[in-house]
Amino acid sequence: MSGRVRVNASRRYDVVIDRNVLDEAGERIRAVNSGSVICLVTDDTVDAIYGARVENSLTAAGYRVEKFVIPHGEESKTPENYLKLINFMAGKGLSGGDAAVALGGGVVGDLTGFAAATYRRGIGFIQLPTTLLAAVDSSVGGKTAVDLPGGKNLLGAFYQPELVLCDCETFKTLEKQTFRDGCAEIIKYGMIKDAALFDKLADTSLAGSEEVVMRCVEIKRDVVEADERDTGPRKLLNFGHTVGHAVELLNHYELTHGSAVAVGMAVVTRASVKLGFCGAECRDELIKLIKAYGLPTETNFTAAQLAGAMMADKKRSGRTIDLIIPETIGRCVIRKTPVEELESFVSAGL
Amino acid sequence: MSGRVRVNASRRYDVVIDRNVLDEAGERIRAVNSGSVICLVTDDTVDAIYGARVENSLTAAGYRVEKFVIPHGEESKTPENYLKLINFMAGKGLSGGDAAVALGGGVVGDLTGFAAATYRRGIGFIQLPTTLLAAVDSSVGGKTAVDLPGGKNLLGAFYQPELVLCDCETFKTLEKQTFRDGCAEIIKYGMIKDAALFDKLADTSLAGSEEVVMRCVEIKRDVVEADERDTGPRKLLNFGHTVGHAVELLNHYELTHGSAVAVGMAVVTRASVKLGFCGAECRDELIKLIKAYGLPTETNFTAAQLAGAMMADKKRSGRTIDLIIPETIGRCVIRKTPVEELESFVSAGL
Repeated sequence: MSGRVRVNASRRYDVVIDRNVLDEAGERIRAVNSGSVICLVTDDTVDAIYGARVENSLTAAGYRVEKFVIPHGEESKTPENYLKLINFMAGKGLSGGDAAVALGGGVVGDLTGFAAATYRRGIGFIQLPTTLLAAVDSSVGGKTAVDLPGGKNLLGAFYQPELVLCDCETFKTLEKQTFRDGCAEIIKYGMIKDAALFDKLADTSLAGSEEVVMRCVEIKRDVVEADERDTGPRKLLNFGHTVGHAVELLNHYELTHGSAVAVGMAVVTRASVKLGFCGAECRDELIKLIKAYGLPTETNFTAAQLAGAMMADKKRSGRTIDLIIPETIGRCVIRKTPVEELESFVSAGL
Repeated sequence: MSGRVRVNASRRYDVVIDRNVLDEAGERIRAVNSGSVICLVTDDTVDAIYGARVENSLTAAGYRVEKFVIPHGEESKTPENYLKLINFMAGKGLSGGDAAVALGGGVVGDLTGFAAATYRRGIGFIQLPTTLLAAVDSSVGGKTAVDLPGGKNLLGAFYQPELVLCDCETFKTLEKQTFRDGCAEIIKYGMIKDAALFDKLADTSLAGSEEVVMRCVEIKRDVVEADERDTGPRKLLNFGHTVGHAVELLNHYELTHGSAVAVGMAVVTRASVKLGFCGAECRDELIKLIKAYGLPTETNFTAAQLAGAMMADKKRSGRTIDLIIPETIGRCVIRKTPVEELESFVSAGL
């Protein structure tokens, strides 16, 4: 099965989900971008597995390819690498009609997207996500960024790609934990918008399938189209993330993003049951599914620690925090919560 | 006389033109921005004259003010200062609803605007232009940028301010040459869009007046609203700039921007007369007006040198260059010119 999701954001583009679509990268990019040079950005791990295939495809489509390789890992998402990449593009003579292609996971995508958004005030940008998480999350929505010493994703832009190509075959080369990180995000989509997707995930073999990836991309597309700049309904996508970020902060990012989100979803849902926002079966089913994917549901941090970290998080505006609260599987709501009530809320969820 | 020009770009905002409006900066910004912290960015020269007045006004309006001062001059428009400014904002805890205020000329405005566009993917941005050039040019239109070693303005974004306050009193403290740079731009507006404005400028005492500044802002507003991202009609604003940039490049930026644009307008108009695009009186009146403002109309560079520099300029796309050609005073057109014809065109204008 293969598919295509059309996104109507400030730019209109397709997310193509297909087995081995990486081999068609050149011709498919050529159909949306008439430039002559491609800056192919990837990390050392991904480059070793897929770099040559993509480069060959781009070259066959008539592009001059200039490859920029960063070390793998979140530590590469820095302003320094951003400026290096920008100066690389300038040195290679990329002009306004040319494009940057991100081949890799979220780090490569976020860094490349921010560079593409700002080099010459915006050049073409194409994403080739090679992780499940990037495919269902960061490759749709137009958020690009790098980290500052003062916080993650503090420097960035909203910038939509011209095309996204998801090759689900690439997920097979992921480390187990990296794959699981994507699964946490997929469970989230089921929880916030789609009970049928949630039910389907009971068969854990489907998590990286074209069918599931496409459904997640559709959900994200719908949310993003309604609120591209993240001022309202898009916050739904933060289900599990507000507590999850706190867990990550307290752990100094030693827990993976997906594990932290899984804990966050569990904490919020347990609290929601205790406070009467949703029924116990919702919590029980969620926790069962999280565990089926080998993801954690508990944390050793105290409610006070977690509430403190949440208040330090950048998504806060003033005296309240927007919490995403499940009402039932497939439906969540945004609930403005006074910061004074945070600790007791979290406490109910531990 | 005072006035207000409403701009309907991707964001809607006002350009307020009024004597001593700097003293009302705090209350006027408060009316459009509900944040609590202002990062006030300025240069050492401007800070010494106007810094305290603006800071007092902002403080009186209830803002916490964090001031960031750069050395004056184009050399400050660097990626390094950009990252310093971003880290300064993060260190001072600016959140998404807060704002950056640019107090100064084009360098301060471009740098501050790019930082505001990308810190937390965009915070509030207010411009207080203190040069005539910034008031009529860079404060309207949303182009923000810094320079790279590989070229000027290569790193940037389109980002509209929430408010622009032009205090025409500030032009009185400008050095004569800096004021003249603004006059070249004003003559340009007359040439491309408004013969009545052009005629009015025969009285050189009017160049920095509220009336003239407002008319220039209106013209730029109309052009930018029709083509915010500079893909078509906005190119009209480049009249005199394509040759002007070449002169600047060849001079290693030792000639001021306004002087280079004045030379560029004269070269293009002389060539246009020779090639039959416009009449001789158009050229004669333009050259007379440029001279009345103490600006140059000649260059010692050869046609071959100028054409070479134009071909190296970033605004080129493929095998043609868009030249802005006068048809009469008050009306210019965009003319796609093959690069092979550039040298003979320029030669006709020397």
